[in-house]
Amino acid sequence: MTESTPNHTQTVKGWAARNSTGKITPFVFKRRENGPEDVTIKILFCGICHTDLHNARNDWGVTTYPVVPGHEITGVVIKVGERVSEFKLGDRVGVGCLAASCLKCDSCLASEENYCDDMQLTYGGVYWDGSFTYGGYSTMIVSHRRFVVRIPDGLPLDAAAPLLCAGITMFSPMRQHGMLNRPGSRLGIVGLGGLGHVGVKLGKAFGLRVTVISTSASKEEEALRRLGADDFIVSTNNEQLEAARKSMDFILDTVSAQHPIGSLLKLLKVGGTLVLVGVAEKPLPLPSFPLLEARRKVVGSLIGGMRETQEMMDLCGKHNITCDVEVVKAEQINEAMERLAKNDVRYRFVIDIGASSADGVA
Amino acid sequence: MTESTPNHTQTVKGWAARNSTGKITPFVFKRRENGPEDVTIKILFCGICHTDLHNARNDWGVTTYPVVPGHEITGVVIKVGERVSEFKLGDRVGVGCLAASCLKCDSCLASEENYCDDMQLTYGGVYWDGSFTYGGYSTMIVSHRRFVVRIPDGLPLDAAAPLLCAGITMFSPMRQHGMLNRPGSRLGIVGLGGLGHVGVKLGKAFGLRVTVISTSASKEEEALRRLGADDFIVSTNNEQLEAARKSMDFILDTVSAQHPIGSLLKLLKVGGTLVLVGVAEKPLPLPSFPLLEARRKVVGSLIGGMRETQEMMDLCGKHNITCDVEVVKAEQINEAMERLAKNDVRYRFVIDIGASSADGVA
Repeated sequence: MTESTPNHTQTVKGWAARNSTGKITPFVFKRRENGPEDVTIKILFCGICHTDLHNARNDWGVTTYPVVPGHEITGVVIKVGERVSEFKLGDRVGVGCLAASCLKCDSCLASEENYCDDMQLTYGGVYWDGSFTYGGYSTMIVSHRRFVVRIPDGLPLDAAAPLLCAGITMFSPMRQHGMLNRPGSRLGIVGLGGLGHVGVKLGKAFGLRVTVISTSASKEEEALRRLGADDFIVSTNNEQLEAARKSMDFILDTVSAQHPIGSLLKLLKVGGTLVLVGVAEKPLPLPSFPLLEARRKVVGSLIGGMRETQEMMDLCGKHNITCDVEVVKAEQINEAMERLAKNDVRYRFVIDIGASSADGVA
Repeated sequence: MTESTPNHTQTVKGWAARNSTGKITPFVFKRRENGPEDVTIKILFCGICHTDLHNARNDWGVTTYPVVPGHEITGVVIKVGERVSEFKLGDRVGVGCLAASCLKCDSCLASEENYCDDMQLTYGGVYWDGSFTYGGYSTMIVSHRRFVVRIPDGLPLDAAAPLLCAGITMFSPMRQHGMLNRPGSRLGIVGLGGLGHVGVKLGKAFGLRVTVISTSASKEEEALRRLGADDFIVSTNNEQLEAARKSMDFILDTVSAQHPIGSLLKLLKVGGTLVLVGVAEKPLPLPSFPLLEARRKVVGSLIGGMRETQEMMDLCGKHNITCDVEVVKAEQINEAMERLAKNDVRYRFVIDIGASSADGVA
């Protein structure tokens, strides 16, 4: 953690849920002073992640109210601490899911801050000084420099914002398991939502053959024509599953509910890897034989580390990859969340914080 | 598959189960002539694997009777085909779980014959000529040279026999996941039976720190004093589990029934690997969070390939590793199986085929 423990003196306008209705209303709160290793960011955009909805409604029973959601934050630097040399005023930057980590353990030393035992999230976490963390549904954030990401010039700040959660969540396991350097190998993406659609774009950029696997046959057109996937499988179609048996090197499974994974495992070649990036409330039934018969793997992956987040962002700049977004104002957050709950968005809502009035906020 | 399809002209004495009582009685059957790439072996010893018991009793509903079990076979070469140069009469050899594979696919070319789609087991399989395979509870076997393993001089044929199944089942994932070259790293072994006790010996030979994880507190003395494990954890003791959180690099889980794996996953460091080598009838409940929070892996492994089986056997010769066995005569197979069903053996029964009378067998 940083050595300083600044005072919480800065008044910030934001939007918070106050109880498990999840209704988001204006909220004024304090953030710490900009410490010597801190960067203060004027927030311009913030994505609405499905996690925000779960936390606002206390779906996981761990929410502390009021909660200011938001961990797909982009904006510009308006202040830097005296020990910060890598960012300057006016820089286009972003902040993702991570607010703090110990910076000393093996995971932190490997820039896998996401796996640090003391990792704290951008909202719903607790800083080293005991204060709660508040997220990006707000006009300003103070972030330790370690957790600030540079946004390449070519990327618009609205469509780039969700890369800080959805993008890195897909990129980290792709990098970890060697998918960046195996053009022509075959990747399955399970679930075509906020995470899945970025996964398709990243996979195609890295030269992979990408198959979208979805419960909805209606998404085929979208997957193939608009996103450029190569193949489409309806996950309940046994003929299609059988035809694709042992055909894939990797599968990235974005589903965050209990679902069958045995049928997915069988799609993998010998030694193939199924990556879970969604947290399901209930345990997934794991049949042992499909795992054993071809020494297949099921691995987990949680967001990503800061070094690889910057690498992902730079590669997105190089390949001109952004998320497909629908931009809304802060006044529309509740409406957007209602639609998100029904998966009625392609593929991410992003709040235009800069254009929002923060009505009723002091 | 081999190109020849020899006649089945050789009469062999053996022991078979005829129905789901699993009772083993003498049985006379035919084996093929020794083909140009075949090796005929006079069987001297055969281990009694738990799989034999399941198959004899049709626990998995796939047994074709009569079944001659046995896939931990050792003996001496008594005939070699004209194209066999690597074995000669009198050689001490063994045959494990594999009887045939296509020899042409990617898996076979990588000597991962165990993952070939056309792999056939030493018993309960079907040869390329449509005939059933019969296992090692018999006085002689004809095996394609690819599936014959040389037994190092220093290893006794009785105690070496179970290495051909239990040994390679533990060795293959150890090799696959880099445990042979990481002395000092930490390995957990779940279940102290036929597989587990060889795993402890192999782990110690490779310089690993080995923790035995068992439901039976009574096995601690045995694990630490007799087998040389470094640590012991009772798998239902939450305090012990908590104390060992994030301490292990690898876990080899030998349990072949439904059991909790979330508590095992939490024992693994970031990026650690849980290997399942036992087939459970019902799916295992896999909680996603312990997998995600430290990018842990659950992988399957099924027996091993032939090249690595020879490597394992040679390493066992070098380190003088054998199984702890109780040698019985064929007349005692049923009694041994009863005791095996109650886990009343440390750790493997081995049939002394050479000393058995094959009473009632023509």
